[in-house]
Amino acid sequence: MFTLGELAEQLGLTLRGDPQLKITGLATLPRANSEQLSFLANSKYQQYLPKTRAAAVIMHPDSEAQCPVACLLSGEPYLSYARASRLFENKPVVDAGVHPSACVDSSAQVHSSAIIGAHCSIGAETVIGSGVVLGPGTVIGGRCRIENNTVLYANVSVYHDVVIGAGCIIHSAVVLGSDGFGFASSRGNWEKIYQLGGVTIGSGVEIGAGTTIDRGALEDTVLEDGVIIDNLVQIAHNVHIGKNTAIAACTGIAGSTTIGADVHISAMSLVTQSISDAGSYSSGTTVTDSRQWRKNAVRFTQLDALHKRVSNLEKTKRKTDK
Amino acid sequence: MFTLGELAEQLGLTLRGDPQLKITGLATLPRANSEQLSFLANSKYQQYLPKTRAAAVIMHPDSEAQCPVACLLSGEPYLSYARASRLFENKPVVDAGVHPSACVDSSAQVHSSAIIGAHCSIGAETVIGSGVVLGPGTVIGGRCRIENNTVLYANVSVYHDVVIGAGCIIHSAVVLGSDGFGFASSRGNWEKIYQLGGVTIGSGVEIGAGTTIDRGALEDTVLEDGVIIDNLVQIAHNVHIGKNTAIAACTGIAGSTTIGADVHISAMSLVTQSISDAGSYSSGTTVTDSRQWRKNAVRFTQLDALHKRVSNLEKTKRKTDK
Amino acid sequence: MFTLGELAEQLGLTLRGDPQLKITGLATLPRANSEQLSFLANSKYQQYLPKTRAAAVIMHPDSEAQCPVACLLSGEPYLSYARASRLFENKPVVDAGVHPSACVDSSAQVHSSAIIGAHCSIGAETVIGSGVVLGPGTVIGGRCRIENNTVLYANVSVYHDVVIGAGCIIHSAVVLGSDGFGFASSRGNWEKIYQLGGVTIGSGVEIGAGTTIDRGALEDTVLEDGVIIDNLVQIAHNVHIGKNTAIAACTGIAGSTTIGADVHISAMSLVTQSISDAGSYSSGTTVTDSRQWRKNAVRFTQLDALHKRVSNLEKTKRKTDK
Repeated sequence: MFTLGELAEQLGLTLRGDPQLKITGLATLPRANSEQLSFLANSKYQQYLPKTRAAAVIMHPDSEAQCPVACLLSGEPYLSYARASRLFENKPVVDAGVHPSACVDSSAQVHSSAIIGAHCSIGAETVIGSGVVLGPGTVIGGRCRIENNTVLYANVSVYHDVVIGAGCIIHSAVVLGSDGFGFASSRGNWEKIYQLGGVTIGSGVEIGAGTTIDRGALEDTVLEDGVIIDNLVQIAHNVHIGKNTAIAACTGIAGSTTIGADVHISAMSLVTQSISDAGSYSSGTTVTDSRQWRKNAVRFTQLDALHKRVSNLEKTKRKTDK
Repeated sequence: MFTLGELAEQLGLTLRGDPQLKITGLATLPRANSEQLSFLANSKYQQYLPKTRAAAVIMHPDSEAQCPVACLLSGEPYLSYARASRLFENKPVVDAGVHPSACVDSSAQVHSSAIIGAHCSIGAETVIGSGVVLGPGTVIGGRCRIENNTVLYANVSVYHDVVIGAGCIIHSAVVLGSDGFGFASSRGNWEKIYQLGGVTIGSGVEIGAGTTIDRGALEDTVLEDGVIIDNLVQIAHNVHIGKNTAIAACTGIAGSTTIGADVHISAMSLVTQSISDAGSYSSGTTVTDSRQWRKNAVRFTQLDALHKRVSNLEKTKRKTDK
Repeated sequence: MFTLGELAEQLGLTLRGDPQLKITGLATLPRANSEQLSFLANSKYQQYLPKTRAAAVIMHPDSEAQCPVACLLSGEPYLSYARASRLFENKPVVDAGVHPSACVDSSAQVHSSAIIGAHCSIGAETVIGSGVVLGPGTVIGGRCRIENNTVLYANVSVYHDVVIGAGCIIHSAVVLGSDGFGFASSRGNWEKIYQLGGVTIGSGVEIGAGTTIDRGALEDTVLEDGVIIDNLVQIAHNVHIGKNTAIAACTGIAGSTTIGADVHISAMSLVTQSISDAGSYSSGTTVTDSRQWRKNAVRFTQLDALHKRVSNLEKTKRKTDK
């Protein structure tokens, strides 16, 4: 719990209203009660401002006149909301130290401030930095390095020779360092190409639940600092992802693809070629009524032929025009 | 093992044939042997009826004349087959109680009839109802509630503040309550928006293997009673899914989407907008020969231009027609 | 470490150069240093050959004249590279035996040469063959059989009645034997169809991280020998996949689909119907700029109508032509 004055100070915002108001949480404008802080960062929510019951609202100074309650003025209200959200984070606290049920190889180094959850395993020669948290059931292979203050939630699987930078968040069921999908054909059978590279992840990276990142064939698969990846994303071997790139859920990135910095990839995209320019990229189609979809999906299989038919019509027209 | 008479009684069906026949299992019409029960619920299987070796067949009374063996008559044979399948379920039985290797926080409440598997973890203040089963390696965070008779298979990861109703089935590698993908931009860097909501799941919900359901940003992500979700589905933060809605595998549901009751979404669909009406929805395309596909996929990137070309041709035609 | 002469012998290749050269690893042509072996198997890399610093290069005899360093001549250089990769595999070694924290049912049989990692669980009546490796946290249900030399990495979940052949590799977070998505409708509610079949996996199969394979409804879901499956693939109940078929990441295979031998399915494909012929298959679309994509994705929903418009134009043309 904070007073409104404390929040204004911690967020570095100008306060209009009573600094003694007590604030117990964050909520949207239509839902906030008289002990909650809200925010106006999306014009769609402007309609809820006049009747909000919030104790106070984070907002741009331009909207101040319409605010019926106290406000915290911010040039970037959405960013200020993000910073406020951190203050109200209320995860259950876990005791520091290595849980007695965890198995830590005798050659691994675990910083005394790290929290190693129940039933974790840590392989030989692995180094775990200060403030690192491993949720229950998380497995770290040998020769890994996990830098300071990085959090891995429950049941994460990290293979050997994986480096994770500082301040990362790795969600449950993530797999880092599984073998890339590499095979040579040998008289109709597949001969496995052993994947000798590792995975290198920069600082401040977040990786969503169930995402898989394969180790490189010879060199490492690389995610640079500040990359954010949503759930159930597949990143194949030898992919290189530039700084602060954001990848939404269910996306697949093909092997050896290089993606530049500040690229935004929308959900369920298929990336088979490198992307050098910053910007937004998408693929796929979105849902419609299934009966209509079925017809369109069949037509998709005839799309090249349709183009040729249209080209023929255009040729005829040009001839007619002459 | 049952006699056919016992099955007729338990399933509430009319029996034509010998009630003393012994039935050891269920099988399809072409595969069933003389101690197995089969069913006819799809007209494609009608062809196998005359030569079936099944002991008996669940079927609609309309087909009774064609049945060479005993039958159990049902107005809804597929539903009767579903009910029969339950009787023949033969999973290995696990002893009740908390496995000695499980770690249960001292403030958690676990009903004495629950089965807590090896290497499970249960966080502080969590409540586990009667008849609940946790498979080995499943992790439940703090302040969760899992209601009566719900089953979580092995290696499920449940974060804190997640409520799961009664009679649910949660398959392996499911993640419930991971952080939603929320970030604010701050001079080119990403500032995390802490996800302060939870997840609320109704009763009788089934969630397939590897599916991920993010916690809400401020309020809960919600699945109402009777929702069924297949494998590797991504449900983003603040999604609300109505009663009895069915979502097939590999589907992605974007954040803050509301999906009504009795909606059916086919596999690998991308849902980016709310769906209010019951019915079937789909997106994507299905496989064809890769060479042909490559041409069509390129044409997809020219689809808007193609529409304009067709519109131009139509304009010319209208002029010509005048 | 090997000498070049030892490598030539082990790989069965003709050596041009000094057999005493010591080789410590494998690298690409532009990256290899003077103690590394490289390979030329893709014409795109030919440009790096003249300036390579590699100790030696695996290559086709046709390119020998251009090679500035030692070479190992192979009619199939990519295959030879695959075989060389095996020699340089350098995973941390784990001690044989059952880790003291693992829970093995007293009725299970585990071969003395198997490696059962920390916090594994093995169910009743399960048989684990010689040389099998289970990574930490892997759970095997009851009545399973895992044949010789198969490796399951960390946190794999195998339900009951699953058979895995010899020499398979199963990556982390894979789920084998989860329930197929089978429900009958009962007055608007879903009635679960219990999934009474199992999963049968042949020999030499590799399954990528996070992939899910459901058990059959009545019979088994089957993968034949030599099938290779990438990450985050969904294989529904009663699918049958033929020998040596390769399925790339993020693909979904619908229930009861039969896929023949030697089929190659590209990433993020949706397979809803059986595929009998060997060959390559694809679906979906690949990324473009999001603004352009949005227009094309809308046009996809009008594709059937567009076909009709083009057909109308063609009819008019034919009339005009007469």
